[in-house]
Amino acid sequence: MTANLLYAQSGGMTSVINASACGVIEAARARPEHIGKVFAARDGIVGALTEQLYDLDAESDAAIAGLRHLPGGVFGSCRYDLQDIATHRHQYERLIEVFAAHDIGYFLYNGGGGSMLTAERLLQVSAELGYPLKVVGVPKTIDNDLADTDTSPGFGSAAKYVAVSAREAACDVASMAGTSTKVFILEVMGRHAGWLAAAGGLAERTPGELPLVLLLAERAFDEGTFLEAVRTRVNAQGYCVIVASEGLKDSAGRFLSINTDNKVYDWIQLGGVAAGLAARIKQHLGYRTHWAVADYLQRSARHLASRTDLEQAYACGVEAVRLLAEGGHGTMVTLRRLADEPYRWEMASVPLAAVADLEYLVPDDFITPDGFGITDAARRYLRPLIEGEDHPPFRDGIPHYEPLRLTLAATRLPAFELD
Amino acid sequence: MTANLLYAQSGGMTSVINASACGVIEAARARPEHIGKVFAARDGIVGALTEQLYDLDAESDAAIAGLRHLPGGVFGSCRYDLQDIATHRHQYERLIEVFAAHDIGYFLYNGGGGSMLTAERLLQVSAELGYPLKVVGVPKTIDNDLADTDTSPGFGSAAKYVAVSAREAACDVASMAGTSTKVFILEVMGRHAGWLAAAGGLAERTPGELPLVLLLAERAFDEGTFLEAVRTRVNAQGYCVIVASEGLKDSAGRFLSINTDNKVYDWIQLGGVAAGLAARIKQHLGYRTHWAVADYLQRSARHLASRTDLEQAYACGVEAVRLLAEGGHGTMVTLRRLADEPYRWEMASVPLAAVADLEYLVPDDFITPDGFGITDAARRYLRPLIEGEDHPPFRDGIPHYEPLRLTLAATRLPAFELD
Repeated sequence: MTANLLYAQSGGMTSVINASACGVIEAARARPEHIGKVFAARDGIVGALTEQLYDLDAESDAAIAGLRHLPGGVFGSCRYDLQDIATHRHQYERLIEVFAAHDIGYFLYNGGGGSMLTAERLLQVSAELGYPLKVVGVPKTIDNDLADTDTSPGFGSAAKYVAVSAREAACDVASMAGTSTKVFILEVMGRHAGWLAAAGGLAERTPGELPLVLLLAERAFDEGTFLEAVRTRVNAQGYCVIVASEGLKDSAGRFLSINTDNKVYDWIQLGGVAAGLAARIKQHLGYRTHWAVADYLQRSARHLASRTDLEQAYACGVEAVRLLAEGGHGTMVTLRRLADEPYRWEMASVPLAAVADLEYLVPDDFITPDGFGITDAARRYLRPLIEGEDHPPFRDGIPHYEPLRLTLAATRLPAFELD
Repeated sequence: MTANLLYAQSGGMTSVINASACGVIEAARARPEHIGKVFAARDGIVGALTEQLYDLDAESDAAIAGLRHLPGGVFGSCRYDLQDIATHRHQYERLIEVFAAHDIGYFLYNGGGGSMLTAERLLQVSAELGYPLKVVGVPKTIDNDLADTDTSPGFGSAAKYVAVSAREAACDVASMAGTSTKVFILEVMGRHAGWLAAAGGLAERTPGELPLVLLLAERAFDEGTFLEAVRTRVNAQGYCVIVASEGLKDSAGRFLSINTDNKVYDWIQLGGVAAGLAARIKQHLGYRTHWAVADYLQRSARHLASRTDLEQAYACGVEAVRLLAEGGHGTMVTLRRLADEPYRWEMASVPLAAVADLEYLVPDDFITPDGFGITDAARRYLRPLIEGEDHPPFRDGIPHYEPLRLTLAATRLPAFELD
C-alpha cells in the first residue's frame, strides 16, 4: 500500500528534534513504494486538528539535510494534549477526517509519554472507525524521563550543555573566590526528574575534582544539610558550584521556585530556584554568590549538541519510518544500550501503551548517599550520552541555517474550532 | 637590562583572559635578553601585596600554550582596588618592596579602567622612590566599556555568546509560540554600558528578520513603550525575543534588578531584571514568557569564543611585553580598527592616564530612535568582533584543559595585612 505520511511534534523543543524530523523525511523520501507525500503538522497536533499541514514536497533535499543543524522545531509544536476519548471523541474523529482528506495512512508523533498516550488513543479510534492508520511514536524529551528506552533524543545535548557550562563557570568562580564570588548556582530544567541536574556531575572528570553540589528533583531539599554541604566545599576547595533542578521541592512537597503562580494549560512554569538558593547562602553563610538560569538555552544550544544524541535523534526518525513501512507499528521507537564503554546501542521498540504517561526518575543507586552527587553507576550511564561534538556551520559569527519554504497544503475541510 | 616580570589580573573574568596571559608568557620567554623569570600574582593585586607569586618557570611550554583554551583566569583575580596614594601610600610601597624582593622590573596589569588608574599610581610611587619599574596595561572587559580602544578582549566572545544564544532560543520560542510561550527574555551583563545587550542584535542577519527587543542600560526603561514594542512584535511575527542589560534603570535612575541589596566591596551585584520583565509582560499582555539569566556563562563560555577576540587577546599580551622591552611603557595596549569589512586591526597604545576610570558607553547613533534596536553603524562595528570560531579540544564530551602546576615562589618578606 502507498499512503501519505504526517509528522507532528509535541511539547518542549530540543536541540536535535529537527534531526529526528530530518531522519523521518529522508527515510520517507527513500521509500516511494510505501510512502507518497510527506506532510508536517504546523504546531503539532493543533495543526493536525485545524488542517494546517506543511507540504514537504516544496522543500529541497538540501533544506531537509540542513534540519540536522537547526535548533528549535521548525514545524512548530504545542502544549495541547487531546483529552479522553469518552469526553472528547470529536477530536479524534476530526483527526481521522483530516487524515482521510489528505490520504494520510501513516502518522508519526514525536513527543514524550503524554504524546504516546494520545497516539495510542488515536489508533484505537481509527480501528473503531475502520480507518487504515499506522502510528509510530518517536521519543523526545530533554528531561530523560521516558520509560523503556536507554535515553531520549534531546537529553544528551541538554546534558552536555549543563556539564560544559558548569565546568566553564567553575573555572570562572575558582578565579574569583579568593576575594569575591565563592558560589555559583546553575538552575536547570527538570520538574520531577533530576536527570539534567545529575548531568552537572559530568563537569568533573573524577569524583571530587570539582566542589560540586547537585540538587536533584528526586531528593527533598533540606536547608541545613544543603548549607553544610556548601560550607564544607568552600572550606576545602575555596568555592562551590551548585547545579539545581528547577523542580526542587522541600520535604512538604512545595516547589522552591518563585514562579509557581505562572500556570498555563495545567502546566506550571517553574524558574527561580537559583535566586532562592543564593539568598539562603548569602543569609546563612555570608558567601557572595552568582546564579544563572539556563532555561531555553539548555534545550536550544545546538552549537554544543552531543554528537551521540544527534545520531540517535536522526536514527530514531529513520527507524520510525522503517517500522511504519515494514510492520511493527503501534509502537514507540526506543534505544537499547549494548555496552557502556565504548558505548554501543541499537534500535528497538515498545508498544505505545507501555510508555504512555510513565515517568522515569533518576534511580536511587545513581545518587550518592548524601544526596548531593552522582555515583559511578550514574557516570557510566551518563558519560556516553554527551560524547562527541557536531559543530554547526557558522557564517558571520553565528550559526548558519538553510531556510525552509514551509508551504501549507490547501485545506479540504471546513474549519475546526479548538476546545 | 634584565629583570623579572610580574603579571596580574583584576576584576571579572573573560573567556579569553588566559589567552592574553598565554601571549604575555610566550612573548616573555622569547626575550631572555630583557626578561628573566615570569611570575603571576595569585588572585591579582592581592597576591602581589601578600607576596603570593606563582613561579611560571615550573610550567611547561605545552601547559602555557594550553592557556589559549582555558576559560576563567587560572592565576586568579580579585575585586580589590588600591586606594588613593594620599591615604594608602603603604599599599603602593608594599608593592614596590615585593617587586624589589623578587627583582621585578616589569609589571603587566590586565584589567579595566580602574586597574589602569592603579597602574598609573603605582608608576608614580615607584618614580618617587627611585625604583626602576616599567608598567604596561592589558585591556580586558566583557563590558566593552574601555575608552580609546576599538574593543577590549573578552567582549567579542561574550557578544558571540549572547548573539548565538538569542538566535538559538529564538528558534525554540518560534516553535512554541502558537499555543505556549510567546516571549523569551535573556538577561545579560552590563551595569552601565549596554554593549552586550546591543550584541543581541547580531542574532539576526538582516534588520527585522527576528522580532527582537533590546533593552540597553543607556536608555531609561519605560514600561509603556516597552510593552507596546513587545505587543507589536508578537502581533507581527508571533513571538518576541528580548535581550536586556542587567543594569537597566527606570527614568528615576533606579535599577530594575531584584538584587540590589547584594553589595560587596562597594560592588552592587545585579541580576533579576529578566524575572521583573517577565512579570510585567504576563500582567499587562498576558503572554506566557520564559527567561534565562546568562550570568557567568556568557563570560566563561570558551567553547563558543570568537576567534577574532581570541586572536586579539593573545596579541594584546604579546604587544604588552614588546612595549615593556622596547619602550613605550606607562601605557595600555589598545586595538585600532583599520577597516570594517573585511575587518583589519593593528596594535596601538595610549597613556595609562588616558583610559583610567573612563567608561565608554554605546553611542547614540548605534541605537535606533525607538531605543529597542541597533543601527547599521552598530552592526558594522559589532559584527567583526564575533567572527570566527576556535573550538577547544574536547575529551569525553567536555573541554579538555592542560593542567598547570601553579607553584608559589618562596616568600622573602614579612606577611602583609590587607586593609
